[in-house]
Amino acid sequence: MKRVITISRQFGSGGRTIAHAVAERLGMAYYDKELIKKVAEKTGFSAEYIEQNGEYAPSKSFFALASSYIGAPRVMGGMSAYDYLWVVQRNAILEIVEKEPCVIVGRCADFILKDRSDAMHVFIHAPVPARAERIVRLYGESEKKPEDRLKDKDSKRAINYKHFTGGTWGDCNNYDLCLNSETFGIEKCVDIIVEMAKL
Amino acid sequence: MKRVITISRQFGSGGRTIAHAVAERLGMAYYDKELIKKVAEKTGFSAEYIEQNGEYAPSKSFFALASSYIGAPRVMGGMSAYDYLWVVQRNAILEIVEKEPCVIVGRCADFILKDRSDAMHVFIHAPVPARAERIVRLYGESEKKPEDRLKDKDSKRAINYKHFTGGTWGDCNNYDLCLNSETFGIEKCVDIIVEMAKL
Repeated sequence: MKRVITISRQFGSGGRTIAHAVAERLGMAYYDKELIKKVAEKTGFSAEYIEQNGEYAPSKSFFALASSYIGAPRVMGGMSAYDYLWVVQRNAILEIVEKEPCVIVGRCADFILKDRSDAMHVFIHAPVPARAERIVRLYGESEKKPEDRLKDKDSKRAINYKHFTGGTWGDCNNYDLCLNSETFGIEKCVDIIVEMAKL
Repeated sequence: MKRVITISRQFGSGGRTIAHAVAERLGMAYYDKELIKKVAEKTGFSAEYIEQNGEYAPSKSFFALASSYIGAPRVMGGMSAYDYLWVVQRNAILEIVEKEPCVIVGRCADFILKDRSDAMHVFIHAPVPARAERIVRLYGESEKKPEDRLKDKDSKRAINYKHFTGGTWGDCNNYDLCLNSETFGIEKCVDIIVEMAKL
């Protein structure tokens, strides 16, 4: 039985829904927003802020905001806010997995925990049309076309992953199991992850 | 139930063994050497020659040999031998899947059949140390270090894939299911592919 499951996912692939269901089925703790809260407490950054920047390459406004954050220069010890957030987030993940069996969503947890033999790393993806349909259904329309929203989020996650891990986001070599959630459906993806985690 | 399963694999990952077992379990035809034989009949190239070049970027000797092949210039209609082999191989794959339910190993079959909703595309990979151990166990030692043999084969397959598909070999977006055969073991990979193919 695996003690830790990391689930990385393309935006709109249903990966977060899958991760939550896997945690419930296996009776494991689930870290997504919970991780953000933990990082917020340690950094003083707002939860919203971390959510927007903790796994995406920074937008221009990030650096502008970060440099205006009063406490930051001292606690960050000369690091950029972006790198500082990475360090705190990484430490939070390492602490969490010592504490309890858990499912962790995103945040390069696959890389951070890659040497743990009790961890299983999963990537959930789906073709663009299926994801576009899903994000409009779940989050509604926005000014931007859904395909552009996907492209933007995916590209920022990929740049963030490259920056901190040197690897390629979505390269199957980083994961034990990659699933196309459109092919198999959300329920079946949950089943298969649960089954494989029990090995 | 899927009618066609393509299995792409890193050299030494056990993908071919897995593919063969999946075909047996599902009572499907298995195309690997059989595909090579078919292409050999159509092109006049030797089976050995196709095996070495049908899914790898050409070595220098390939072009030297190909240009000395007497029948080639006429039948190839101005194409390079490398491109000609691709065309014949592609047509053979398209013919085969019309004929019978089957498992096809490698040869960019995932790309060639990507628009078929009755096909499932699988990628089998494993970390380098596990693959190095496997190729030495199965194929014996050679002058080259096993890690270098892996690097050479993987890189030629990746270049071949890029040349003909424009895509990235091993990018999970190309597949429905990617499995790390070291994590789960050969038998469990077979189980999971069989289970998913039955959906």
